[in-house]
Amino acid sequence: MLLFNEGRKRVVIENVKPEINCGDFPIKRVVGEKVVVQADIFSDSHDVVSARLLYRKSTEPDWKEVEMRYLENDRWEGEFVVKHVGTYRYTLIGMVNHFKTWQQDLQKKLGANQDIKADMGIGIDYINKALERAEIESDKEMLREFGKVLKEIGSVDVERAVSVALSEELTSLMEKYSERQFVTIYEKELEVVVDRKKALFSTWYELFPRSCSSTPVEHGTFKDCEKLLPELMKMGFDLLYLPPINPIGRTNRKGKNNSPISGPDDPGTPWAIGSEEGGHKAIHSQLGTFEDLERLVNKAREYGIEIALDLAFQCSPDHPYLKEHPEWFRWRPDGTVHYAENPPKKYEDVIPFFFETENWQGLWEELKSIVYFWIDKGIRIFRVDNPHTKPFKFWEWLIREVKKDYPDVIFLSEAFTRPKVMYQLAKVGFTQSYTYYTWRNTKKELIEYLTELTQTDVKEYFRPNFWPNTPDILPEYLQYGGRPAFIIRLVLAATLSSNYGIYGPAYELCVNKAIPGKEEYLNSEKYEIKYWDKNRPENLKEFIARVNKIRRENPSLQTTWNLRFYENDNENMICYGKATEDLSNIILVVVNLDPFHTQSGWLRVPIEELGIELGQPYLVHDLLGDDKYIWQGEWNYVELDPNIIPARIFKLKRRMRREKDFDYFM
Amino acid sequence: MLLFNEGRKRVVIENVKPEINCGDFPIKRVVGEKVVVQADIFSDSHDVVSARLLYRKSTEPDWKEVEMRYLENDRWEGEFVVKHVGTYRYTLIGMVNHFKTWQQDLQKKLGANQDIKADMGIGIDYINKALERAEIESDKEMLREFGKVLKEIGSVDVERAVSVALSEELTSLMEKYSERQFVTIYEKELEVVVDRKKALFSTWYELFPRSCSSTPVEHGTFKDCEKLLPELMKMGFDLLYLPPINPIGRTNRKGKNNSPISGPDDPGTPWAIGSEEGGHKAIHSQLGTFEDLERLVNKAREYGIEIALDLAFQCSPDHPYLKEHPEWFRWRPDGTVHYAENPPKKYEDVIPFFFETENWQGLWEELKSIVYFWIDKGIRIFRVDNPHTKPFKFWEWLIREVKKDYPDVIFLSEAFTRPKVMYQLAKVGFTQSYTYYTWRNTKKELIEYLTELTQTDVKEYFRPNFWPNTPDILPEYLQYGGRPAFIIRLVLAATLSSNYGIYGPAYELCVNKAIPGKEEYLNSEKYEIKYWDKNRPENLKEFIARVNKIRRENPSLQTTWNLRFYENDNENMICYGKATEDLSNIILVVVNLDPFHTQSGWLRVPIEELGIELGQPYLVHDLLGDDKYIWQGEWNYVELDPNIIPARIFKLKRRMRREKDFDYFM
Repeated sequence: MLLFNEGRKRVVIENVKPEINCGDFPIKRVVGEKVVVQADIFSDSHDVVSARLLYRKSTEPDWKEVEMRYLENDRWEGEFVVKHVGTYRYTLIGMVNHFKTWQQDLQKKLGANQDIKADMGIGIDYINKALERAEIESDKEMLREFGKVLKEIGSVDVERAVSVALSEELTSLMEKYSERQFVTIYEKELEVVVDRKKALFSTWYELFPRSCSSTPVEHGTFKDCEKLLPELMKMGFDLLYLPPINPIGRTNRKGKNNSPISGPDDPGTPWAIGSEEGGHKAIHSQLGTFEDLERLVNKAREYGIEIALDLAFQCSPDHPYLKEHPEWFRWRPDGTVHYAENPPKKYEDVIPFFFETENWQGLWEELKSIVYFWIDKGIRIFRVDNPHTKPFKFWEWLIREVKKDYPDVIFLSEAFTRPKVMYQLAKVGFTQSYTYYTWRNTKKELIEYLTELTQTDVKEYFRPNFWPNTPDILPEYLQYGGRPAFIIRLVLAATLSSNYGIYGPAYELCVNKAIPGKEEYLNSEKYEIKYWDKNRPENLKEFIARVNKIRRENPSLQTTWNLRFYENDNENMICYGKATEDLSNIILVVVNLDPFHTQSGWLRVPIEELGIELGQPYLVHDLLGDDKYIWQGEWNYVELDPNIIPARIFKLKRRMRREKDFDYFM
Repeated sequence: MLLFNEGRKRVVIENVKPEINCGDFPIKRVVGEKVVVQADIFSDSHDVVSARLLYRKSTEPDWKEVEMRYLENDRWEGEFVVKHVGTYRYTLIGMVNHFKTWQQDLQKKLGANQDIKADMGIGIDYINKALERAEIESDKEMLREFGKVLKEIGSVDVERAVSVALSEELTSLMEKYSERQFVTIYEKELEVVVDRKKALFSTWYELFPRSCSSTPVEHGTFKDCEKLLPELMKMGFDLLYLPPINPIGRTNRKGKNNSPISGPDDPGTPWAIGSEEGGHKAIHSQLGTFEDLERLVNKAREYGIEIALDLAFQCSPDHPYLKEHPEWFRWRPDGTVHYAENPPKKYEDVIPFFFETENWQGLWEELKSIVYFWIDKGIRIFRVDNPHTKPFKFWEWLIREVKKDYPDVIFLSEAFTRPKVMYQLAKVGFTQSYTYYTWRNTKKELIEYLTELTQTDVKEYFRPNFWPNTPDILPEYLQYGGRPAFIIRLVLAATLSSNYGIYGPAYELCVNKAIPGKEEYLNSEKYEIKYWDKNRPENLKEFIARVNKIRRENPSLQTTWNLRFYENDNENMICYGKATEDLSNIILVVVNLDPFHTQSGWLRVPIEELGIELGQPYLVHDLLGDDKYIWQGEWNYVELDPNIIPARIFKLKRRMRREKDFDYFM
C-alpha cells in the first residue's frame, strides 16, 4: 500500500525474477554459480532511470552494488556470483537519473538545432552538486574543471560544449557521485540458499549393505562395504547411499516379495525401523558398530566417496517410540495403531507418525535430533524417504534449522507423487529431488519434461536427480529392453542431469525380472538378502566407469541448466548438447531410444551458437566409442546400433587454425 | 516465513489468480461481473482436501464462503459475483478433510475386499464429533441415526454399511458440520475495485464546445452544446467529453497549427490552463457560467448522456499557481520556468508541475481539491491528460482517496506511452485506459494486441477504451483509406472493445487532412475554432447510430472479455465473435481491413462452442446491412465490398425446432 511519506519515489520496480512465490521461498545455487536478476524498472515521464542490483551474504550487513543493464521494454538485468556456502540476499534499487536525462535532452536539442544556453546552466548545477558529494581530491578537481569549461564555452561553442557534456569522463564521474534522492528500494529482500558443488554434481550409488558379503550365506556388514569402495571408485561414483541401517522390527515383518507372513530367517525391510535393540539412533547389530560405520565413512572419503544415509521417519510396531510416545501415533477406536496405508496398499510393518498430534513440537524436536545424531557421526548427505507424507512446514523448519548450523548438508527428496507436491518440497528446502525421469522414455516426453525442469522457474529451486531404477521401481522399459535399455537409460540420466544415481548391483547386472504386471523387482532385495555375482559377463561396470569418467572430465556435464535440445529427424533418436559458458567445453549427445533396432538420422548442430562458422569443419570425438568424425555445417548423419552402443557422447572440437588438420582442433 | 505455532496447518495455498503484483494492486470489476478465483491447494500425504473461497464487501466484517471445485493437478476454482459499487476483498482457506479421506479409503478398501471393521469405528467417531458441532435439532437426529446404523450393520452387512457411509445425505451433513482445525488461511486479502457498469460499457464523444456555435463566426458556448444533445443521443453516445473548459493562458499562446506565434484572435489550446481569470477551478468565460455548465450536465442526463471533463494537471505561464506557489514549478538557473518539453518537442505555453518539490504534499492536496471541486459540480467522469508525466504514487493516492468518497467516479487514462507505463497506470487505479488500438490495423496486429488485453492477467486491471482518432492523432490509415477506413475503424473499435470513443465531428465527417508526414490534423481544432458543416453528404451519422444501436441492443457487445477470434482464410479480413455466457446473445463480426478492395473468404464459426450441432442450420442476420443468411457447418463464405459496407455484424440465431423454418430461430 501507499506510504504517504514516499510520494517522491517515482521509480517502479516489479516483475522481479527470480522470485519464488512472491519471495516466500529462496532460490538455490551452488558455490560459483551466477544469480541473474531481471526486473521491470521505470519511472513516470521521459526521465532516464538508473537501476542497481544489491546483494550480500546474509551474515554481512553491507550490500554490494551492481549496475544493471537495460535490455528492452523497461526490462533490466544484473548478476552476481555466489562464492560461499550459506545464504545470500538480493534486492534492487532504482532512481531517476537527472544528469543522464539532461544529457539525453541536450543531445536531442542539439540535433534539432535548438537553443541550449539555458540548459547549460542546469548541467553546471548538477556538476556543482556532484562536487559536494565527491570525496577524492582529483575527482573534485576534474569536476571543477568540467564546470568551468562548460561555463566558458556553453554559449560560445555549443557543439563543443555538448560534446564535453556528453564525454565519457564526465559521465563516469557523475555516475560515481550520482545523486541518491527519492530512491526506490524494492520492497523485498530475496534469499539464495548456496550449497556446496556436490548439490549440483553428484553420482549416486545405492546398495544394501546386508547384501555385501563376499560369501552367499552371510549377512553383509559395514566392513564388507569397505571392500567394495575401490570398485565403486573405479566405476566413478562419488556417493554411496545406504538404506536405513537401524534395527528392523519383528512384528508384522514382511517375508519375501512383500508377503504378509515372514519366516524366522526373513530379514524384513530396512524401512521398518526400530526394535528392542533401539530406533532411529541405533544401528542394526548384524551390520556392525558405530565404530565400523565411522571407519566406513572415513575410508570412503579416501576414495572420494561420501556416505549418504536414509531418513525414514516412520516406525516398526516394535520401535521404542510407540511405548515412550504413544501420542505421536494414531490409534483406532479399537485400540490398535494405524499402520501405513495407501488403500488398497497396506504396510502393516510400518507405523507413520501422526503429525496432527498435540505434542507435534516434541515430535519435531525429536526428529530433528535424529538428523543431528547422524551429522555427529560424520554424515552430511541424507536421502529422505517419502517426505511427501509429512507436513511441508515440518521440512521447511527442519532443513532451515539444520542448514543454519551445517550449511553443507544435502537433503535428497524421495517423493514420487503429484507434480506440485514434489515442487513444493523443493521450495521448502530440499537440496535435490527425485523426478519423473524414471518414466520418461520417448523423445517427446523427455524434451517436454526437461524443458520444464531447465527452462522455467522450476530451475531456480528444484535440482533434479535422475534415477533409472530404485529398489522400489523396475520400470517397464528396463524389463523389456535388455542390456541396451540399461545403457540407454544410464547415458540419458548421466548426461541430461548432472545429479544421477543407480540402485546397484541390480543395475549394472541388468536385472530385469519383475513381479508380473508390476514395476517391482521380483524377489526384491527389500525383503531378502542377496548375493550378487558382480562379474557376470553382461555387467555394465566398464561402461558405467566410462560414462562417469566423461562426466568428471567435462565440466559442461557438471550442471543441468545448460541443456539444449537439438533438432533431428528421427523420432527414435534424441539429441542434445551442453556447453560451458565460454564454449571451452562442448558436449553433444545422441541416443537411440529404441533398444531393439538400429536407428539413424540427421541431426542439426546449432553451430552459430557454438561459435562455428558455416564453412568451417569441426571435429566430433565420440568419448564412448572413441571414434572421431569431421563434420561441417549444421546437419550431420548418425547411426546407432543398440547391439554395439546405442549412444554417442561427442566432444566437439572447433578447429583453431585453418591451414592445419585436426591436430589443431581444441 | 515459518510460524512455529502453525505446524499443524498442512494445506498449502499458492499460485492464486487473479493476484496482481503479489496482491499489491486490486483487480477491477463492474457490478454484476464475476470474480473467478483459481489456486493450487494441496496437502502432504494422500488426504482429501477441502477448499473455500471467502469474500466480503470491504465495509462488512463477515466473510461469505463459497465451496471451491477441484479442476485437475491440485488446481481449484471458485467464484462470486460483485453486486455493489465499492471494494470487495477475497481470500482462500484450505484444510484436510478427514471424513472425506475416510470415505475415499473405505471405498478403495471395499473394492479390494479388505476388512473394514476397524475403519467403521473411526467413521462413527467422526460422526459423533460432528454431532457436537451440529446446531439444528433435526440434523442432530439424523447424525445420531447414521451413527447408530453404522454401528449396527458395520460388521454384519459391510456393503450396505459402506453405501450408508458414502451416502449423499451423510456427506452433506458432515460437510455442513465439518471440522475446522488446522485451517490454512491464505496469507493475503486481495482486493476488487467494483465500478458501475459504465466503466465497462461506454460510448464516448469528444468535442470542443467552442466549436459548437451554430454560426461560423461566434465562440461556442455550453448553451450551444445543449442544442447538440438530441443528435448525440440519436447517434447513440452516452458520454460527452469536453477538453479543458478553464481559462486559457495568453503568454506563449500557440497560433494555428501549433505556431509559436499567435495573433490576437487565436484562441490558444484549451490545455494551456490558467489566466488572470483563474485556473483549474475557473471556467473560460466565453463558454459560459457555472450555471450554464450545471444546466448542460442536467440536460445531458435527460438524454442519457453524462458529461466528462478533462483533468490536465499543468499550467499556462499565466496560471495563478505560478505566483501563489512558485515552489510547485521548476526554475532554471537563469530564473525562467521549465516549460513542458519532450525534446525536440517544446510546449512553451504549458508549464508542468514539479512533483519532486519539497512541498509535494501541498501540491497533491491542491490537485485533489480540483477533482473534488468538479465532483461538486456534478461531474463523475474524468479523462486525465498525460497521466504518465506525473508519479504513479500520486495517482494511486488520488484515485483511492476520491473513490473512498465517490466510488462511482471514473478516471480515463490518456497515456500513449510505453506498454509497462500504461499498464502501471491502470494498476494504480485508472478505471479505463487509452490503448494502442489507434495504430493496430492489420489482422495480425489486432489479434496479437487484443489477445494480450483479453486473454492475460492484463484483463484483470486494464479496461481498454478504443479511440480510432483523437484531436492529437489522425492515424495514417484514416488519412489514406477514405470513408471506408472510417467505417472500418469505427466498427472494429465499437465491437472489439465495449468502451470506445471518437473525436467528432471530425470523425463522422471523415476529416482526413493531416500535416504532411505527420499523424496530426491539419488546421487542428486544438489551436482554432471550427465551424463544422455536420450534414455534409459523406457524414457517417446514420452509420454510427446503427452501430451504437447494435451495441445497446446486444449484451454480448457490452463487455470486452468475451472476445474470441475465429479462423478465416483471408489476411485482409478479420473475424471474431462475442457471446453472453448463456449463449442467449451471439454476435459474429467480419471486417474487411482493406479499405480499397473487395475481399472475400471463408470463415470458421466455432459452432460446437456456440451450442450448434454439425448438421444443424443457423441463421446469421447482418444487423448492419439487414441481410439474412442460413449457414450450416463451420466454414461459411463472406464477401465485403468497402464501397458498400466493409463489415458485417451478424447476430447468430440458432434454430430451436427442426420442423419449422427460420421464423423459429432465436
